[in-house]
Amino acid sequence: MAAYSTVAEAPRLLFRQLFEKESSTYTYLLADVGHPDKPAVLVDPVDKTVDRDLTLVKELGLKLIYALNTHVHADHVTGTGRIKGKMPGVKSVICKSSIAKADLLVEHGDNIYFGNLFLEVRATPGHTVGCVTYVTGDGSDQPHPRMAFTGDALLIRGCGRTDFQGGSSHQLYQSVHSQIFSLPKDTLLYPAHDYKGFTVTTVGEEILHNPRLTKDEVSSEIFLFYFLFFGYWRKCCSFAL
Amino acid sequence: MAAYSTVAEAPRLLFRQLFEKESSTYTYLLADVGHPDKPAVLVDPVDKTVDRDLTLVKELGLKLIYALNTHVHADHVTGTGRIKGKMPGVKSVICKSSIAKADLLVEHGDNIYFGNLFLEVRATPGHTVGCVTYVTGDGSDQPHPRMAFTGDALLIRGCGRTDFQGGSSHQLYQSVHSQIFSLPKDTLLYPAHDYKGFTVTTVGEEILHNPRLTKDEVSSEIFLFYFLFFGYWRKCCSFAL
Ligand SMILES: [Fe+2]
Ligand SMILES: [Fe+2]
Repeated sequence: MAAYSTVAEAPRLLFRQLFEKESSTYTYLLADVGHPDKPAVLVDPVDKTVDRDLTLVKELGLKLIYALNTHVHADHVTGTGRIKGKMPGVKSVICKSSIAKADLLVEHGDNIYFGNLFLEVRATPGHTVGCVTYVTGDGSDQPHPRMAFTGDALLIRGCGRTDFQGGSSHQLYQSVHSQIFSLPKDTLLYPAHDYKGFTVTTVGEEILHNPRLTKDEVSSEIFLFYFLFFGYWRKCCSFAL
Repeated sequence: MAAYSTVAEAPRLLFRQLFEKESSTYTYLLADVGHPDKPAVLVDPVDKTVDRDLTLVKELGLKLIYALNTHVHADHVTGTGRIKGKMPGVKSVICKSSIAKADLLVEHGDNIYFGNLFLEVRATPGHTVGCVTYVTGDGSDQPHPRMAFTGDALLIRGCGRTDFQGGSSHQLYQSVHSQIFSLPKDTLLYPAHDYKGFTVTTVGEEILHNPRLTKDEVSSEIFLFYFLFFGYWRKCCSFAL
């Protein structure tokens, strides 16, 4: 019988989920520990936890090469600038369409390599025009199940706000369905925020249970209107700025 | 080349880490989803998040059979009683030496089965006399790497307080070294609390970097005394009640 691998410390991928309590933001650390350099990336680092994150990187003997943002966050100060100040070799990464500055501007379909592992860039606009989801590579030498870092496009049982910053609920619905729900059902989804203490979900689970994104689009819009109208939206559902 | 399994949703084990912000407590959900009943256990459920946890159990189609506590917690009201009130079939589990009431009183060396998966009970006293660590089974059909739910015996880069509740820093040091640090280096360690936003660590990492538990015992005692003396212990290190 095969051994059942459970988590993070697989033969090659080192993975850590990190939480910033005040803004309920998740930062993710991924590294190829099968590579001699142990190259690593941080997804959505937060300003006030940069020291914690860099200490961890150092303790684990990793070489941080990229600090990625899924989008321009209105809800927290990103840590990318501070990281570059403390580790000048690190390159910041963001999507070209976000119209933000970074060392590396990526587009839908690009692959971001760290050692022999990579993240695929998928455009998932709707919360902001420049939102992307980073998905671990497809292939037998890449992590299984796949993992997707969805930013604010998809939250656990919720999604990001679409009522400002060029947001569009129609576009978000299309993004999630075409770029995230089309991934294998066992794909692990890691959001940029969670307000209820959840840490992870799967494509299969969100297709069944996400109240914002599972209905057909018309009902979804009505649902959204209903929540906004009654002012319940913040309380009942997980929304991120 | 072999596929690298990364997390949680392995062929048989379903695993979820859940967080309660106010007390910074982690609850863990484990289920054997390879078994037709999908039997599940909750480790260290918290009173105020019982509804969230039971909703998740229901959405995932699991059958909750046990609610386990690693110890009698002084720092948060456990959710075991509330779970039994809402799901009368669930059995509460605690270590016999904790001198607490439960449906199932376990001892060092016992195995707690849920489907074909099991948790091994390891006595790890020191924070309280009745503290145990639950470790996933040893065997090719059990999760790899192994996972240990350490309660307050071992925290990420720290450990639980030993200055009350029959605590003993000598006993805690011995417990961690003989029962936790003796596990394979890649064993994933999941504590009952974290105050800095860490979610997981490994045996290898704590052996190298845990400031409370890595020194030989005499230096460890001096270290503890130093921190207590200067009243810095709460600020500088992760301690749990
Ligand atoms: Fe955001
Ligand atoms: Fe405790």
